[in-house]
Amino acid sequence: MIVSPLAPDLFPDLPRIAGLEAGIGRAGFYKHERPDLLLLRAAPGSRAAGVFTTNAVGSAPTDWCKQALSAGRGAVRGLLVNAGCANSFTGPAGDAACKRSLEAAASKLGVVPREMLAASTGVIGVLLDDAKIAAALPAIDLAPVNWLEAATAIMTTDTFPKGAGATCEIDGVAVNIAGIAKGSGMIAPNMATMLAFVFTDAAISAPILKTLLRQETETSFNAITVDGDRSTNDCVLLFATGAAKVPPIPDAKDERLAPFRAALSHVLADLAIQIVRDGEGATKLVTVTVDGAANDASAKIIARTICESPLVKTAIAGEDANWGRIVAAAGRSDQPIRRETLSVRFGDLWAARDGVVSPDYDEAKMSAYMKRPELEIGVTVGPGQGRARMYTCDLTKRYVEINGDYRS
Amino acid sequence: MIVSPLAPDLFPDLPRIAGLEAGIGRAGFYKHERPDLLLLRAAPGSRAAGVFTTNAVGSAPTDWCKQALSAGRGAVRGLLVNAGCANSFTGPAGDAACKRSLEAAASKLGVVPREMLAASTGVIGVLLDDAKIAAALPAIDLAPVNWLEAATAIMTTDTFPKGAGATCEIDGVAVNIAGIAKGSGMIAPNMATMLAFVFTDAAISAPILKTLLRQETETSFNAITVDGDRSTNDCVLLFATGAAKVPPIPDAKDERLAPFRAALSHVLADLAIQIVRDGEGATKLVTVTVDGAANDASAKIIARTICESPLVKTAIAGEDANWGRIVAAAGRSDQPIRRETLSVRFGDLWAARDGVVSPDYDEAKMSAYMKRPELEIGVTVGPGQGRARMYTCDLTKRYVEINGDYRS
Repeated sequence: MIVSPLAPDLFPDLPRIAGLEAGIGRAGFYKHERPDLLLLRAAPGSRAAGVFTTNAVGSAPTDWCKQALSAGRGAVRGLLVNAGCANSFTGPAGDAACKRSLEAAASKLGVVPREMLAASTGVIGVLLDDAKIAAALPAIDLAPVNWLEAATAIMTTDTFPKGAGATCEIDGVAVNIAGIAKGSGMIAPNMATMLAFVFTDAAISAPILKTLLRQETETSFNAITVDGDRSTNDCVLLFATGAAKVPPIPDAKDERLAPFRAALSHVLADLAIQIVRDGEGATKLVTVTVDGAANDASAKIIARTICESPLVKTAIAGEDANWGRIVAAAGRSDQPIRRETLSVRFGDLWAARDGVVSPDYDEAKMSAYMKRPELEIGVTVGPGQGRARMYTCDLTKRYVEINGDYRS
Repeated sequence: MIVSPLAPDLFPDLPRIAGLEAGIGRAGFYKHERPDLLLLRAAPGSRAAGVFTTNAVGSAPTDWCKQALSAGRGAVRGLLVNAGCANSFTGPAGDAACKRSLEAAASKLGVVPREMLAASTGVIGVLLDDAKIAAALPAIDLAPVNWLEAATAIMTTDTFPKGAGATCEIDGVAVNIAGIAKGSGMIAPNMATMLAFVFTDAAISAPILKTLLRQETETSFNAITVDGDRSTNDCVLLFATGAAKVPPIPDAKDERLAPFRAALSHVLADLAIQIVRDGEGATKLVTVTVDGAANDASAKIIARTICESPLVKTAIAGEDANWGRIVAAAGRSDQPIRRETLSVRFGDLWAARDGVVSPDYDEAKMSAYMKRPELEIGVTVGPGQGRARMYTCDLTKRYVEINGDYRS
């Protein structure tokens, strides 16, 4: 396997999360020997919240999580993750297999199944063989989390394990955040599945976890796109073990949460951008910032249209500052834009200003800029206050190769 | 240049349109010698209607056409088309260049500029050098239209010229339709530009032309997608010279127009599908039919999401019946779908039925089907009456190569 040229040099040192144990196992969902199971146990009193794919097809594990979090008001004790089978589009049989796998995991952890969460990643339409999971559970040893091992066990076609962490204080109490993610590889037998699990030792209620997670997902996991193909199994789960005894906080807007919110935001964005760095065939990490839009939501639609334009992405792969394609993508976003103010820059180099090519456009400087592995594109679409930032990668022949050579 | 493997064997014989003359010329917008201008003169009393890109950036020629058709209530006498420069995102200077080129063309044709229409195709952001057009006009000889020559002069990166025609009767009077189109090649220095010009000798009023064109564009040019990158210059123009003296028809719903509407629909769909056949790097022509949706508009959004999914398109390039990706694309269309009725077929072979893999799924038969150059994918999303059909092509390494190697 070739590691993405955009991969970080090292897996980071992540803080220990008190009240959390984990172990990895081998259920055998892959032909070659590799860990494909991750089991986590959270201390009594732990709370969790999730953000799930809005894909209408969904999957048995996302259905389970949504129901369990709602019924249990966020009370959780464990998480079971498998790679190699998405258990999506598998009907009632898939739901039953998911439930049986969680019953077996709960029994091992000494908790009840309704306190378990589940995540699966792999090919769509294949029923989860839960007997393989049941057979692998006895060999799993639970211990304080080895984050590198955990991040590696949930990889599918990822070319590097993804982790991020932070420390901060809530009302004077030190708290930790650690998270892992997988995603962006979509080679056989997997499918676009992005999963992220983030943990803190802070004592935070489930409703506040949910609010923070939803808000901070908007500018992290909901601000990345490799090819626009949202999967059936995507989810981000945030757990709080409560081992760090912070004072009760009634509301997500409480100022004492500000440092935690900032640290969480950092961890989520770090993981999200690592997923883009591992986009199939990616050779460029691209940050697209849109400003001057009617509002932030409109700016985000424009940014996404640019980020998902095959013409823009192939031009970037070719190291071509083809700003005309960026202008055309903004124009087809069906959002209000003012043509005579439309401006496009690459880094600090203006390509277009106020509706025409920039008077100081310099092809040589532009070409030099485009050779960088990390690019920033800024687009001003009008006089409004709306802003958004999205992250994407280029579209290369390797992407087509990876995704076209499936099962052949 | 390699001709698309999906190209028709021959350019069709197209009927003569009485009241229409044309000639081609060389303005020199390309480095290599080739015709890049098309000039048409329509008889006095001719009427036209257009459908234009909704890209908010637009272009000087599309702005001109919209204004001229509106101000003149569809009265037209001529059309000037150039390949090699889109004259889009060129500000007031671009508008002035467009106007000057039409003044020169009108003078040659002996008509007034406001009766002229214009279309340009090529790179975005480059100002039209109208002096080149003015210099080339004297050498253009007008004569009854040579359709193959005309279709070739408007090509940019097309690998074959595109034409379609039909004959029919309106209230017992024989009338002819002939059309040409260009599009789907987006290699340097061009950009996604799709143009189509359709002509009839029938005497039909401008409002009726407009109604018919809008309605029939919906299932032809608005039902094709190569990569979702709608251009700044797209337009379809329909001209009626009135040489075939059909009785006045007050309204587009008049039953006497039914044969004409059917013939027009045939011509537009034929041209539109030829554009998909010439999609860059295309090796497969794919027809996607969605039924069971809440309504036709919803079905079309689902069909388009499937047609533009990079994962679906790369799977087709790899001759892989990856129905899970089709299910996932339908699921992310944000349209109402009923998971337990979701079914997917390739031709007559069912891959998924009622929310799970089809019980008679046969990988060998499926693989054999996927080797065909023309594929049909049917997706049932629920119990509704909504239906739509869209046409697309596969996404190959050649697409990335063509669009990434620009200006480098």
